[in-house]
Amino acid sequence: MAQRLHAALLARGETVAAAESLTAGLFCAALASVPGASRTLRGGAVVYATDLKTTLVGVPADLLAEHGPVSGPTATALAEGVRIRCGASWGIGLTGVAGPDPVDGHRPGRVYIGVSDGTTTEVVRLDLPGDRAAVRSAAVEAAVAALLARLADGNGDGRDGVTP
Amino acid sequence: MAQRLHAALLARGETVAAAESLTAGLFCAALASVPGASRTLRGGAVVYATDLKTTLVGVPADLLAEHGPVSGPTATALAEGVRIRCGASWGIGLTGVAGPDPVDGHRPGRVYIGVSDGTTTEVVRLDLPGDRAAVRSAAVEAAVAALLARLADGNGDGRDGVTP
Repeated sequence: MAQRLHAALLARGETVAAAESLTAGLFCAALASVPGASRTLRGGAVVYATDLKTTLVGVPADLLAEHGPVSGPTATALAEGVRIRCGASWGIGLTGVAGPDPVDGHRPGRVYIGVSDGTTTEVVRLDLPGDRAAVRSAAVEAAVAALLARLADGNGDGRDGVTP
Repeated sequence: MAQRLHAALLARGETVAAAESLTAGLFCAALASVPGASRTLRGGAVVYATDLKTTLVGVPADLLAEHGPVSGPTATALAEGVRIRCGASWGIGLTGVAGPDPVDGHRPGRVYIGVSDGTTTEVVRLDLPGDRAAVRSAAVEAAVAALLARLADGNGDGRDGVTP
């Protein structure tokens, strides 16, 4: 799937960056597993600590205070912020609860994924089954799938053409 | 090994951040595989594109131009920069060539790992065998081992006590 995403981005001459909380680098690492990944992967931020979501990616502190780190608005701000800070065509924001314990009232498996092209940011909310490793792995796969779906739209705004 | 590192940091009340190039997030992701990792892992930066080493972590552009992205001085600057920007006790810098092709005259498997506590930064240079996946995986293991060795020193300066 990383290979498919690399090829799809390459065909459009586009790049991606990711701000990752629960996955902590797994999305970027998956893309970097493909030889030649430097043509499509810019990089990103591992924003495990809540304050790094603000300092590294620019998520407003009051947004975090109002909605919490595990939320759609935070996933949106992560995607938009990392896209800008890394100079990428696309930004991915990944936040959620890997488990085993709940966080801020969210049960393990609750994940928000933001996908931004600078014009439109779409957020997917998931409740993933399985243990900590399974949740993190499935979150990466879902993020790759979400970006592939946007790329398949052809125009990047997520409103026309093929939808997921 | 991630579990051992988490426990060793927890025992000292210390934290870690990493700036990763060839591993692209695998070091942070390994630490985050341990439940409760938020007590020792701050986060980090995936600095796959060379310019992100400067913009995200503060590696001086003239240092990159003089020594190249795959070098001891770059690993040092990545470790020191990410430690400061993430507010961590320890900073790890990982740069190298995963392969299959050489980069800037360096053969695949050449990896530099910087470990900084804010006072002393030590750099390990490795020539790792195997394919792209093996090199990246071994680089993460070597970085974990290098930090564990520094922690085993007891005083963090890498000069006294148990050495690797």
